[in-house]
Amino acid sequence: MPRDRLFDLDPLFNPASVAVVGASSNPAKLGFHVMKSLIQGGYRGRILPVNPSAAEIMGRPAKPSLQAWPEAVDLAVIVVPAGRVEKVLQQCRLKGVRGVVLITAGFREIDDPQGEKMQARLAETATRAGIPVVGPNTFGMVNRHHDLNASFTPEFSRVPKGGVALVSQSGGIAHLLAFLALENRVGMSKIVGLGNRLNLDFADLYDYLVQDPDTAVIALYLEGLDDPRELVIRIGRSKTTKPTLAYKTGRGTTGNAASRSHTGSLAGNAAIYQGALKQAGVLPLDSAAALLDAAKALSICPLPLGPRVAVLSGQAGPAMAACDVCEDHGLRLAQFEERTQRHIRSYLPPVAIRTNPVDMGPAWYDAEAIGAIVNAVAEDRQVDAIVLLMMYASANREALSALEPFFRRWRQKKPLITCLLAPPGIWDDTLEDLERSGLIVQMPTPERAALALVALWRYAALKTGRVCW
Amino acid sequence: MPRDRLFDLDPLFNPASVAVVGASSNPAKLGFHVMKSLIQGGYRGRILPVNPSAAEIMGRPAKPSLQAWPEAVDLAVIVVPAGRVEKVLQQCRLKGVRGVVLITAGFREIDDPQGEKMQARLAETATRAGIPVVGPNTFGMVNRHHDLNASFTPEFSRVPKGGVALVSQSGGIAHLLAFLALENRVGMSKIVGLGNRLNLDFADLYDYLVQDPDTAVIALYLEGLDDPRELVIRIGRSKTTKPTLAYKTGRGTTGNAASRSHTGSLAGNAAIYQGALKQAGVLPLDSAAALLDAAKALSICPLPLGPRVAVLSGQAGPAMAACDVCEDHGLRLAQFEERTQRHIRSYLPPVAIRTNPVDMGPAWYDAEAIGAIVNAVAEDRQVDAIVLLMMYASANREALSALEPFFRRWRQKKPLITCLLAPPGIWDDTLEDLERSGLIVQMPTPERAALALVALWRYAALKTGRVCW
Repeated sequence: MPRDRLFDLDPLFNPASVAVVGASSNPAKLGFHVMKSLIQGGYRGRILPVNPSAAEIMGRPAKPSLQAWPEAVDLAVIVVPAGRVEKVLQQCRLKGVRGVVLITAGFREIDDPQGEKMQARLAETATRAGIPVVGPNTFGMVNRHHDLNASFTPEFSRVPKGGVALVSQSGGIAHLLAFLALENRVGMSKIVGLGNRLNLDFADLYDYLVQDPDTAVIALYLEGLDDPRELVIRIGRSKTTKPTLAYKTGRGTTGNAASRSHTGSLAGNAAIYQGALKQAGVLPLDSAAALLDAAKALSICPLPLGPRVAVLSGQAGPAMAACDVCEDHGLRLAQFEERTQRHIRSYLPPVAIRTNPVDMGPAWYDAEAIGAIVNAVAEDRQVDAIVLLMMYASANREALSALEPFFRRWRQKKPLITCLLAPPGIWDDTLEDLERSGLIVQMPTPERAALALVALWRYAALKTGRVCW
Repeated sequence: MPRDRLFDLDPLFNPASVAVVGASSNPAKLGFHVMKSLIQGGYRGRILPVNPSAAEIMGRPAKPSLQAWPEAVDLAVIVVPAGRVEKVLQQCRLKGVRGVVLITAGFREIDDPQGEKMQARLAETATRAGIPVVGPNTFGMVNRHHDLNASFTPEFSRVPKGGVALVSQSGGIAHLLAFLALENRVGMSKIVGLGNRLNLDFADLYDYLVQDPDTAVIALYLEGLDDPRELVIRIGRSKTTKPTLAYKTGRGTTGNAASRSHTGSLAGNAAIYQGALKQAGVLPLDSAAALLDAAKALSICPLPLGPRVAVLSGQAGPAMAACDVCEDHGLRLAQFEERTQRHIRSYLPPVAIRTNPVDMGPAWYDAEAIGAIVNAVAEDRQVDAIVLLMMYASANREALSALEPFFRRWRQKKPLITCLLAPPGIWDDTLEDLERSGLIVQMPTPERAALALVALWRYAALKTGRVCW
């Protein structure tokens, strides 16, 4: 069904009140977990549970219907069985609900033409009423900066707040990414499970997120779209741009068939997708972890002005691993200016590799020397980006804190990706503080640190149209 | 210098006594950390600190020289400055020391011909005396099953005991891998830092490890070898075989030059290495994480008899991601037998993807159904291997324990790789128990689960010579 105007998605993401239709006290029901998510997530607006047979849910008064609540309802989260959704949606319309998260499954994705028909009717009702709907067949959605967790997964509220918005066609992948974000300290703004896309698709979310001040990077997980051109056209039409990344599955025949059943769309030809997305300036990534790593780097680092990388490392092996990844993916190892080279030589004995990569091993116990080397290399006009690696043993707890002023000085000028590893308990707090302050972008291995830089450079190249790889 | 016989490496890995020459009470000295590693690692033999100017180190009596100890010394860990190493090595010879870990750096790897000469003299002394030497320029080595941590990194002793032996040309990469092993619960047997390879090289370690009952898989990190053929020939000559994997860096020009400085050997032509290693039956991997993932899978799983994979998942998206990786790397999605298909249909409604991949989402709350599906698929003769994925939300803590009998039943029959994810605190203990008992091989993402299966299949294919990819 065509729409003549864009939905206002603000009531979805920043509602003043949220009704949970199908709220429950029974932990075996999704309506219980939605309530838990909203409450534990610290949502500051009104929570309005709706349940025909309970006067109280999780210590809060409940009402038998939406209409029974005197308050205005901005967002309704619907978790009733599929057969009752149409009626609830009608009530939403009558109540003046401004946005819906429809968690219930059993529509277009099922092996029964009735599902498709029911979804079409829902779409017509919602769209005619001007109600944007996330779902059906979704875990829900999260606005971290509004402390709104309108999903059945309370743990989403543990993900750090930050600049990465995720729009996912799969609940499983969204959960995977959220847990990886939790582990790797990736700050997120929104997490949206599109589900069957009743009347909201990637393009609509893109339009909203590109204007969203809390969102610095838009990360998409795609399987198949009804009309991939729509997304590409909308991105092209957008006046603002924000780094936008996509991880697309369903490349093989099997995945393609699975997608049809999963979300009701064929995954389509992988190469055509890749080409179209790149043309629209969307950076393709090839795994969930790579999507998140790239999003993390793009949400914090400035873009590199060129492909010349400096690899600074506490040990030679990890430096070689990072160099290989850089060179395999179109980055070059910078040739330092003579002044930089002199500096490095003054801090490191001939035993070290002092060109590029730089093996800072011999300066291991000299935090000041390591700081001075990082600084000299950052100042070098031949260097567009830095990878800093330290596979920590047990000897120098001080090194990391000593580097802080240099991180602070360079954070907005040149991209710097770190892989600073230590056994549990050694650097945890310091690393966490540095990451929370946006002073470093930390990756779990040297190879992934290098790949994050590759993503930065590829996005920079896509954006300027200078390079196509 | 040619050798007419192989060294006996047993005293290195299973010494009855360990002298630390250069032991220190000063935390700024490596000799302190070596002592700490030995003591905290729980080494059960005699620890004999040697220091000319301390009567006691870390609460243990010290002697001014090796000779001053009346006991026989099996292993000497040397951490004195480079200029004093020759003399200490002579003392080792006189004392009848049977193995040396030479941590000191400053030999062949330095930018001074004196370093190379000094190393040649050391090699001659050691080899003539029949003393195998790990190093110089190494962190040391670890035998987890003997509780021997003869390194300057006490944290190596936190790595779980298990079947993966690591021989690394880089200390940094060895530390990286050990920390990843700690995080991802990979059981290790030995961790060896070859350093400059005075008189022990990959080939010697291979010969030892292939006979080592504690080692199921040999993982190599290579930069450059003086004579790569030597390793290939020795592997070919070996009567026993064990899965052997290699991660090789120094592919680019920069890395190659760095390797020369780092360990005194050119990294050499990447393609020649890959070809030679594959011919010898060594599986090449392309990152530290991939090396460890493959080693973990090979140390626990049986090999697949064919390339036909079943992907069972709690959600469709992660299944598609895994299918893509499988199909991109030469695995096929199995077509289930009719009996299996009937079983699956009896447990899952038409809403689910019931072919392959199987979306077990609708059976989410029914641990018994999930168990029965896993079992039916494992029994299917069209299935050579299984990937089991669950991106956990918060609803069913029981599912995992309910699967245990099926894991137990199938562990030695068909390879099964899992990616069972949960927010911190939910499954931690259960997952840890299952992994510790070798019942599951857990990977951190669906893509890496699929890649681990790819590694199993590639190794199986290499071994039988049936497939070359």
